[in-house]
Amino acid sequence: MTNKSNLAYISEPGPATDGLEYDEALRLTELEVRKLLKNAPPLIRVQTSHLARVAGKGMRARALLACSIGGDGLVRRGAVNAAAAVELLHLATLIHDDIIDDADMRRGIDALHVKFGEKTAVLCGDYLFCLAFDIASSISPRESDKDKIDGVLPSYLTEICLGEIRELGNTGNLDLTEREYFRIISGKTAALFQASFHAGFFLSDEPREAKDLYIETGKQMGILFQLVDDCLDFVSSKKKAKKPVLTDCRRGVVTLPLIYALRADKTLRLKIENGLSEQELKAAVIAAGGLEYTQSKIRERRTKAKKLISSLGSESKKTRLELLLDKAAAL
Amino acid sequence: MTNKSNLAYISEPGPATDGLEYDEALRLTELEVRKLLKNAPPLIRVQTSHLARVAGKGMRARALLACSIGGDGLVRRGAVNAAAAVELLHLATLIHDDIIDDADMRRGIDALHVKFGEKTAVLCGDYLFCLAFDIASSISPRESDKDKIDGVLPSYLTEICLGEIRELGNTGNLDLTEREYFRIISGKTAALFQASFHAGFFLSDEPREAKDLYIETGKQMGILFQLVDDCLDFVSSKKKAKKPVLTDCRRGVVTLPLIYALRADKTLRLKIENGLSEQELKAAVIAAGGLEYTQSKIRERRTKAKKLISSLGSESKKTRLELLLDKAAAL
Repeated sequence: MTNKSNLAYISEPGPATDGLEYDEALRLTELEVRKLLKNAPPLIRVQTSHLARVAGKGMRARALLACSIGGDGLVRRGAVNAAAAVELLHLATLIHDDIIDDADMRRGIDALHVKFGEKTAVLCGDYLFCLAFDIASSISPRESDKDKIDGVLPSYLTEICLGEIRELGNTGNLDLTEREYFRIISGKTAALFQASFHAGFFLSDEPREAKDLYIETGKQMGILFQLVDDCLDFVSSKKKAKKPVLTDCRRGVVTLPLIYALRADKTLRLKIENGLSEQELKAAVIAAGGLEYTQSKIRERRTKAKKLISSLGSESKKTRLELLLDKAAAL
Repeated sequence: MTNKSNLAYISEPGPATDGLEYDEALRLTELEVRKLLKNAPPLIRVQTSHLARVAGKGMRARALLACSIGGDGLVRRGAVNAAAAVELLHLATLIHDDIIDDADMRRGIDALHVKFGEKTAVLCGDYLFCLAFDIASSISPRESDKDKIDGVLPSYLTEICLGEIRELGNTGNLDLTEREYFRIISGKTAALFQASFHAGFFLSDEPREAKDLYIETGKQMGILFQLVDDCLDFVSSKKKAKKPVLTDCRRGVVTLPLIYALRADKTLRLKIENGLSEQELKAAVIAAGGLEYTQSKIRERRTKAKKLISSLGSESKKTRLELLLDKAAAL
């Protein structure tokens, strides 16, 4: 076995000085992810090609690329590979999530475990994890820096696992507190945003002292993103969300709109325990102000994130990150 | 989140020059693995503590430590952490394997997914993967070397995944060829032995040119180890194997003793298709010479590995590796 056999099909990164415009870097990242999925070893290609059929919004890749913008307004080529790695990690977590959540659909197509069975899906997730680490380890550090991208990723990923385990342990728990809910989403969603911001910072030319600011911004954006997703589960149509809606409740995942509604409407708990239709539950959560409350939390996080962004790097970087924040906050 | 939060409980490695005797290093590795499992975050501790209840043979840790022995006959402290990481990776793959194989027991206790459910087991496996990478990324490279341990691990792990996928795709396939069987076990078992040898070499003071020799020795030892395991499935008692025997056949995993028996006894296939009791199958495989043939392959690999070992490092290292080979070959 040659050591880098799995990367034989990854694009050769250009010289480190070879800067790219942000849009071009994003396009190359999407191409790279698609290529990695479509050119996977034949054994697993049918599964990974299935995943390549629909792309997500690429929020984590966008975040990483935006954070990596240098003083010259350009993105280093290595950031494209890092962004591809982060998207693959995200895909890997989605595959395992869908098994854990018994979710049938993902991004408008059958979930992997539905189409190919749980066993294959576990292994595909594992494969993509490893592939992502493999790519991350091939990215050279900047000389002044002791960190390496593959050195920072694992600890964020353990946070994701812990968030997922925490969520699983609270399935159907109507006593879930707001505090515990935020701990769950800080792990399961925000940690990978933090990783993307951290890796982007790492590939930028920002001074070392700025690191914590980047990571904190990633955390706020990640939490906000999940809050929006949890609102969408109550308000969106199936077509728009590209996945079934109200699935959280159906699967027993308790999210903020419901937590608030249970707090505001003391009769709701008994109603749920006695059995409510989905439409009745949705109406009750909205009537109790669950969505409004969650939206107020989204606004809070948005204000925090905006303030943080205002201290990050050049004007072009700030603009990119603000646009990304708008995208994350779009209901 | 602090970046190394998950490692707060890992022992501080001593100075790089602080050498250890092999036996002491092995003892410390076992302690370290147990400590990491028992001191995992509270959320997952009940599961990881379950895993800490029984230890395996630690073949991969032993291999790594033996390969890392320096010219002074001692093991660097960093090798203890690397060996702990490799054992955790092995545990992670076992957890996912047991889900995939529907195995009920592992090392004499309930498999994790049996005790805690499949969903939790998927996440525990993921957590241990990440923890292992986290530890690996904290090990400093030797100055002369461009490789880092966390840089070489992922590509071996993708090989493991591919081996597992290949095996899964051949469930119940009585037409499995010997060649394909060796491809499967080269991935699913030998790749982690190769990784252990590679990492051990990397932590030793051997010249760079010796790298491929180490990796090749790891491959031969890994294949031999799996061949022995596949024999044991036919000959061992449940008590001795600490797992149910004849499980491979029951789960449709076709291994070399059966492949040979099917080749030697042309009537066997039809008998299997018509239904054979486990005892009848065992008797038929033995009568057709399936075990003898597999043992001849074990001897071949042993001779190859012995020859390779004779060119590796100091006398004390050779002795260690030969003892390990004996252990791997013990039926």
